[in-house]
Amino acid sequence: MSNERRKVGFIGLGVMGQAMASHIQNHGYPLFIYNRTKEKGKLLIEKGAIWCNTPKEVVENADVVFTIVGFPEDVEEIYLGENGLITNGREGQFFIDMTTSSPSLAVKLYEEGKKKGIHVLDAPVSGGDIGAKEARLAIMVGGDKEAFESILPIFKTMGTNVVYQGQAGFGQHTKMANQIAIASNMMGVSEALIYAIKAGLDAELVLQTIETGAAGSFSLSKLGPRMLIEDYSPGFFIKHFIKDMKIALNEAEKMGLELPGLSLAKKLYESLAENGEENSGTQALIKYYR
Amino acid sequence: MSNERRKVGFIGLGVMGQAMASHIQNHGYPLFIYNRTKEKGKLLIEKGAIWCNTPKEVVENADVVFTIVGFPEDVEEIYLGENGLITNGREGQFFIDMTTSSPSLAVKLYEEGKKKGIHVLDAPVSGGDIGAKEARLAIMVGGDKEAFESILPIFKTMGTNVVYQGQAGFGQHTKMANQIAIASNMMGVSEALIYAIKAGLDAELVLQTIETGAAGSFSLSKLGPRMLIEDYSPGFFIKHFIKDMKIALNEAEKMGLELPGLSLAKKLYESLAENGEENSGTQALIKYYR
Repeated sequence: MSNERRKVGFIGLGVMGQAMASHIQNHGYPLFIYNRTKEKGKLLIEKGAIWCNTPKEVVENADVVFTIVGFPEDVEEIYLGENGLITNGREGQFFIDMTTSSPSLAVKLYEEGKKKGIHVLDAPVSGGDIGAKEARLAIMVGGDKEAFESILPIFKTMGTNVVYQGQAGFGQHTKMANQIAIASNMMGVSEALIYAIKAGLDAELVLQTIETGAAGSFSLSKLGPRMLIEDYSPGFFIKHFIKDMKIALNEAEKMGLELPGLSLAKKLYESLAENGEENSGTQALIKYYR
Repeated sequence: MSNERRKVGFIGLGVMGQAMASHIQNHGYPLFIYNRTKEKGKLLIEKGAIWCNTPKEVVENADVVFTIVGFPEDVEEIYLGENGLITNGREGQFFIDMTTSSPSLAVKLYEEGKKKGIHVLDAPVSGGDIGAKEARLAIMVGGDKEAFESILPIFKTMGTNVVYQGQAGFGQHTKMANQIAIASNMMGVSEALIYAIKAGLDAELVLQTIETGAAGSFSLSKLGPRMLIEDYSPGFFIKHFIKDMKIALNEAEKMGLELPGLSLAKKLYESLAENGEENSGTQALIKYYR
């Protein structure tokens, strides 16, 4: 079957999902969509997408279904609930979860799918809303390599850096490594800038001076300037970052691995969330120190 | 007085100091040198540098004296000891400390110098031994702006990114901000990679996948690969990094500022040092988790 003929389902039409689904649609794939609130499907429907009232309806119509929702509980419901994808799926279908979710759950979905001859991939992304809009996401994929290769043409409508990481769960594990690296670095960036501010330095000049050297990082250069002008609007929500850190710590615990930097970062972010910052962007960490 | 006529002193001929002094020498400045062990001055002496037996002898001969030594105690002795620079200095001289040292000490030296009409600058560097060898150091300068401008031509023989940060101590404060950003990020990089290893991922592939995105940093790209091949040879010594973190925490405490990420990083590095890793490179942090 040529890729252009494949019928594609897309579940989860947040900022990321809408942009990603529209790229698939723009490449000529018939699109079947579902979301908790129908309104978010409006633009896609205007361009020809078919609205479905349940994941079950999506799976009855599509050959390949992508999901990108909020939390692992949502993923589990969409795949294994009464109206779920695997529950109602059939042999030969492909389901790809792009939510940042638990590696253990990804393995479970893979195994449940396999029992029915369904191919399940875990394929979380990085690159944020801008990466999604510009179809420049990094996509980290776990599952069977043949399934990965079959879906690769569709992945490529959404991302530029699509990498097969290995067996089921390894896409999620790679994303966890990504989040772990970011978590402690956010403390470093926040602490460096608050120190500069409190010491009376020109913090913008300090940032420009140090970002080109050994202290340089994506977070320092992209989020540091927002910290300095106190722009806390969300690129990436604190509540979602806390979810990711919890998953990573949970997985690490299963491996017998202690991650004190990550534990501390989670603690600081949770303290912010308790103070009403759960819908701020992750750069609001500097507020912890102010 | 043209810059080329200025007689320059250089104290502290470690890996960094030797390279920096040789650039000054190569630009035609007469050079007077001192170091605890004379042997490290050999190459400079062969090229015409004059050996001095004490800082006092340096200050009797040179108009401008640079210092880059180990610890704040060493700096204090070289400036304020019996044979020290300020103790034996005269009006109109310039002394520039390039050691990463305490901002408070930098202010003290500035004030002691001022009493005798001596211009003191704090000018710590970043860029490591390679930056020093290639004359591509970042130099962060605090003190009087006129003094900075007078010394700028000599700074430019050693670095490409020479930035005046403000009053006395502000060069050191900027370097502290730099070290603070690095400290927590080193935990992030170590924890991300140990997680990838323990999860059974291809850690090198994970590194390549995540380094171009939001988890990207100088430390991840430059030190991450060394962690993976277990190359712990020092680019920057753990013992010196601990010294810097102590200074930063001490200064932060004076400002009433808590830096939990930095405190934790210092604790992990101290635990490594206690286990005999004080002369390893900072990338040996991953050993804490192994």
